[in-house]
Amino acid sequence: MRTITMELGPDSYDIIIRKGCLSDAGELLDLDRKVLVVSDDKVPSVYAQTVLSQCAQGYLFTFEGGERNKNLSTLEKILMSLLEHNFSRKDCIVAVGGGITGDMSGFAASTYMRGIDFYNIPTTLLSQVDSSIGGKTAVNLSSVKNIVGSFYQPKRVLIDTDVLRTLDQRQLVNGMVEALKMAFTCNSELFDVFVQGRAFEDLEYIIEQSLLIKKNVVEQDVRENGLRKVLNFGHTIGHGIEGSFLDDTLYHGECVALGMIAMTSKELRSTLTGALEKIKSPTHYPFDKARALEILSHDKKGSNGMISTVQVSEIGSFELVPMTTEQIAGLLDTIAY
Amino acid sequence: MRTITMELGPDSYDIIIRKGCLSDAGELLDLDRKVLVVSDDKVPSVYAQTVLSQCAQGYLFTFEGGERNKNLSTLEKILMSLLEHNFSRKDCIVAVGGGITGDMSGFAASTYMRGIDFYNIPTTLLSQVDSSIGGKTAVNLSSVKNIVGSFYQPKRVLIDTDVLRTLDQRQLVNGMVEALKMAFTCNSELFDVFVQGRAFEDLEYIIEQSLLIKKNVVEQDVRENGLRKVLNFGHTIGHGIEGSFLDDTLYHGECVALGMIAMTSKELRSTLTGALEKIKSPTHYPFDKARALEILSHDKKGSNGMISTVQVSEIGSFELVPMTTEQIAGLLDTIAY
Repeated sequence: MRTITMELGPDSYDIIIRKGCLSDAGELLDLDRKVLVVSDDKVPSVYAQTVLSQCAQGYLFTFEGGERNKNLSTLEKILMSLLEHNFSRKDCIVAVGGGITGDMSGFAASTYMRGIDFYNIPTTLLSQVDSSIGGKTAVNLSSVKNIVGSFYQPKRVLIDTDVLRTLDQRQLVNGMVEALKMAFTCNSELFDVFVQGRAFEDLEYIIEQSLLIKKNVVEQDVRENGLRKVLNFGHTIGHGIEGSFLDDTLYHGECVALGMIAMTSKELRSTLTGALEKIKSPTHYPFDKARALEILSHDKKGSNGMISTVQVSEIGSFELVPMTTEQIAGLLDTIAY
Repeated sequence: MRTITMELGPDSYDIIIRKGCLSDAGELLDLDRKVLVVSDDKVPSVYAQTVLSQCAQGYLFTFEGGERNKNLSTLEKILMSLLEHNFSRKDCIVAVGGGITGDMSGFAASTYMRGIDFYNIPTTLLSQVDSSIGGKTAVNLSSVKNIVGSFYQPKRVLIDTDVLRTLDQRQLVNGMVEALKMAFTCNSELFDVFVQGRAFEDLEYIIEQSLLIKKNVVEQDVRENGLRKVLNFGHTIGHGIEGSFLDDTLYHGECVALGMIAMTSKELRSTLTGALEKIKSPTHYPFDKARALEILSHDKKGSNGMISTVQVSEIGSFELVPMTTEQIAGLLDTIAY
């Protein structure tokens, strides 16, 4: 068992990484009260049932997965479920699912009676390496992702790598890109594991190392005022590409991978694409450049008309560089057909 | 001008009490950015317009007032308005209205982009003495009041007693009861002003003194874990009575006044009712006792089946006493016909 403690004063919490820990949820979490287990229909139901069977008084809330259901309407349904079962301030929510489930459950927990306990059990590699740290909860509004939410820390996070067995290869890649991102910007030794093509050999190690990087960043900048911007490496362009498709043509991680390539110096670019190919992530893809630019410029442009970007010209380090939309447009040719 | 500084570390803020300060909002607040002024149709529109005229880039959002519109649907409309006008993290919301407007505006501000600046300009006596301190934002869900919300502090509060001129007598009583509550539980000297029938002579003084009491309580207990329960004096039964009417038969403050009488020792009861009569608040009223009991017991009962109440047997002090529903039922006869 590996334990990472997030040091956030009164909001500190542990992340426990252990194969099979889902079956010990009753020991690792305080489930001796009313518990709303929130999951979505894309997660094998056995995971939520495993948690439910360990609750003193457990209730299940399942919603239809997907970004288009990550909204205030689903949030209201979760809150109504808490209300109907007469949850008090001393009861809790357990999220069992990917990032959407975790983000919405955390938001519901942060607002019901102005805050009840929240536990997160991420079941995708992406949510295990990424959204289990950071305390950012959210829903989408209109077509804008994560524009409404709160900063709210879970009481504990359980990471069980056994649940990753039910994911398909692309979903694993989706998460592995975020791990690679942390290594590329912050830890050149960890990046070597990717270069050598050994990333999938020891998932617990990759998850732990990625979380340690993110922990370090988040502890220094909980409210996302500065350093934390490094976590957005690849995401400015990535979000633009993601938004330019009307469906899930590319997954989040795949879009971020393209965004990273565009934001890496010419000298390093082949090293990065080589590592991405080892984890089977696409390194270029046909997308609507004008549409992607429009979206990223709408989402990210600051009051000065510049877009704040993260760039890498040395493995394990990064720079924050303000760019114009035109400068970013010039970089898109490296990744689009 | 009287200024009260709420000492809450990084969340500290000033409350400025001054006749006519609405006209100086542009100097007292940072309105040199995008500003969403939120108000409701029960507030004279000139107040919101006065603020708007002092904004660099101001937008108005008006909703239909009343408890039944204090919900997630109105919240979503406020958030959509921020989104449509492309508000960034550096922009702000100004609430101009009573408690409902302030509570919803604060909740919207706390969740849009996970938190933008919020200013509060309360325009009722109730919101001036009560909801301008405390950092509790909320909406109702189903029929349960304030069950969804957040703890979020405003950047500054402006209290202009000139705006109280447009309130009718009962609305003034509505707020004065909360001021009397603070005095009765925490400050016997201030309570003398009520006993002597001089409460309406100097509103700024009453507001300032009430806020100083609430400030002291809230600073010691921001998250409502202990001491802050004193603010609930009269509210357990008060909420039960309030909920037992299907309309606004009695105002919030009037219900709280009845609740206070029931929770005061026999020896002190006539002193309290005498003071309440001086501010023209009812001291008994016909209501459905069974219905009120059902509501208060549903809302407030703890996991041990007991209801936590605040009782007064000496002016300027209070005790926390757990009671059964049956014990509370016995007290209702003192205030119901």
